[in-house]
Amino acid sequence: MTQQPTPPTPSPVPPIPARSWAIIDSTLREGEQFARGNFKSDDKIEVARALDAFGAEYIELSTPMVSAQTAADIRKLADLGLKAKLLTHVRCHMEDVQRAVDTGVDGLDLLFGTSSFLREFSHGKNIGQIIESAQKVIGWLKTNHPNLELRFSAEDTFRSEEADLMAVYKAVSDLGVHRVGLADTVGVATPRQVYALVREVRNVIHADCGIEFHGHNDTGCAVSNAYEAVEAGATHIDTTILGIGERNGITPLGGFLARMFTFDPQGLVDKYNLEMLPELDNMIARMVGLPIPWNNYLTGEFAYNHKAGMHLKAIYLNPGAYEAIPPGAFGVGRRIQAASKVTGKHAIAYKARELGLHYGEDALRRVTDHIKALAENDDLDDAHLEALLREWVSA
Amino acid sequence: MTQQPTPPTPSPVPPIPARSWAIIDSTLREGEQFARGNFKSDDKIEVARALDAFGAEYIELSTPMVSAQTAADIRKLADLGLKAKLLTHVRCHMEDVQRAVDTGVDGLDLLFGTSSFLREFSHGKNIGQIIESAQKVIGWLKTNHPNLELRFSAEDTFRSEEADLMAVYKAVSDLGVHRVGLADTVGVATPRQVYALVREVRNVIHADCGIEFHGHNDTGCAVSNAYEAVEAGATHIDTTILGIGERNGITPLGGFLARMFTFDPQGLVDKYNLEMLPELDNMIARMVGLPIPWNNYLTGEFAYNHKAGMHLKAIYLNPGAYEAIPPGAFGVGRRIQAASKVTGKHAIAYKARELGLHYGEDALRRVTDHIKALAENDDLDDAHLEALLREWVSA
Repeated sequence: MTQQPTPPTPSPVPPIPARSWAIIDSTLREGEQFARGNFKSDDKIEVARALDAFGAEYIELSTPMVSAQTAADIRKLADLGLKAKLLTHVRCHMEDVQRAVDTGVDGLDLLFGTSSFLREFSHGKNIGQIIESAQKVIGWLKTNHPNLELRFSAEDTFRSEEADLMAVYKAVSDLGVHRVGLADTVGVATPRQVYALVREVRNVIHADCGIEFHGHNDTGCAVSNAYEAVEAGATHIDTTILGIGERNGITPLGGFLARMFTFDPQGLVDKYNLEMLPELDNMIARMVGLPIPWNNYLTGEFAYNHKAGMHLKAIYLNPGAYEAIPPGAFGVGRRIQAASKVTGKHAIAYKARELGLHYGEDALRRVTDHIKALAENDDLDDAHLEALLREWVSA
Repeated sequence: MTQQPTPPTPSPVPPIPARSWAIIDSTLREGEQFARGNFKSDDKIEVARALDAFGAEYIELSTPMVSAQTAADIRKLADLGLKAKLLTHVRCHMEDVQRAVDTGVDGLDLLFGTSSFLREFSHGKNIGQIIESAQKVIGWLKTNHPNLELRFSAEDTFRSEEADLMAVYKAVSDLGVHRVGLADTVGVATPRQVYALVREVRNVIHADCGIEFHGHNDTGCAVSNAYEAVEAGATHIDTTILGIGERNGITPLGGFLARMFTFDPQGLVDKYNLEMLPELDNMIARMVGLPIPWNNYLTGEFAYNHKAGMHLKAIYLNPGAYEAIPPGAFGVGRRIQAASKVTGKHAIAYKARELGLHYGEDALRRVTDHIKALAENDDLDDAHLEALLREWVSA
């Protein structure tokens, strides 16, 4: 088909400039907590180089506490001289932090569970003790490693008491961390809840302190929660390629970019090599030994499959009628499924014209009905459709 | 492992009672617009019976305009005597509607595109003409088929002018439709936008007129938008099993139920046979010839896979620490992946105790380090882990 220019989708809300936020890709940390995520040294180098070429601002790596091999791998990645900043994700313990500062990363992502669930069933500390540990660890880091970029995240933020959270965030902001982190660890937060909490956090931390959001997808809100966090003033969003992580994972890089593209397409194009997305998704699918899910954002097999007659009629005239994002922006193609039981005469007429065939109104209706009835029982491919159209034009 | 009782997850916002909304499952309509969705007569009967047994309040079917076979299938489904109400989805045209009323369904879901995209590139009508068509069609239906349940939906709602929408919704509510529909046809709406628009629609329609939401998932917001619609007063949510539909589909039944379960678990248990979800997801996967996506909500292969040591330590004590929803509620199980490089000594100690083995602190640290280093290179299964633990305890 002849591709018509797609007009930009009108923004439903005032656009959020893409320069106001950065991606922290955690495929090499959260992704290692995915059931099938067990990246070897060479895999890690390939993933880090690909993310760097894509334009990811940060790459988060598993803690060196995992193993000697993991610690050695972090050093190797730090030596690659990537543009992306490297972070490692460590518990807010002196032992972990001392191991981490020796790896050559650009920053540390510190975490501490603040919900009653994690305080009772994980580390057993109260809020006062959490703040005390943070003071000790962050104080030591600011004195001994003043150039490291520091984040402090309250794990399981959205099941924590608000007063506890604000006390912790204010304390670590006063200690001079560069970012505070909100983590929806069990995937239970809702979009308006994320929006409201990010705005409240904004009010208790220093003006130059960033806000990071990390969201699991157990209840289907990982992309929308990340978006609402940005709307409310978050500056950093955690993603993984294909969304891999504990359980069913976190905000997927592709899904988040699809969401943000609708607000500031040019801003995304300026920051990232968006056409690399299929390569990134395919790389991780290969490494974890699983296919790209068929319903995946942008790169799924059917993400741009158009089928119903009403849709096809409009798509032929202007793809923007049924596409929020032009597929070419992310290096993927469109599929027009003209031969199905739900097709319509406009789609069939378009196909006929492409073949140089002219159908009158009555003949068009007859051939369309025939195609729909045939397709009801069997899938018709394009070759079969073309043969039918050539045969019936002279009937 | 011994399963500990899971306390209910605290609700982050005031609970929305499950009785305030109903599901309109559109697997047999929207799902037929999925690339691989081409349900035969027997398939349709199987799907409709399964949805009915599950407790879905409504089942939406493709328009009888698709083909003579489709029209005959609708009649057959109407004769099954299901508890669920049957609807068919038709353009707001006299010809379509007259065909639909002969099929024996309980209601008609009328649609008309209201965005400038669809007005220009699909049907070519202005808002005055749309309201005129609605008056003619709905007037005829109310006179001749007063018992049919009627919905009028503005296709591509979220790229339509607000003044146009309100004029259309007010007009059809005055004409006596039972529901108005908001459709995020290209998957571009955001959660707070859906929330705000549903509240505005609530103000212009009659008090006894319901609000239906239909959301595509192109930008990852189909579940959260459906949830925010309910929060704002929507009464009916469109879903499909596995989310199948045009492109990458709409709000998936399982994802939506996962989201709503966190607010009113007992309300969901009272309405639906939640443990049937794996059967429903497997049924549609089989019919479309594709696997359940590995990252699917609740029924995906890894939806309840727990791996990081910090997570395992807490999960053994209380699964609610890292699970928003107890898996048993939806008839699925939990997977504890204790042998990986990101495991920890608490998880290993737990495994050892399960085998009746006692490890002291030093021995535990040594065997944990050994397991982590081994798992770095190869996946270890449970049998291998058990053998190692038995071997090392006497070392």
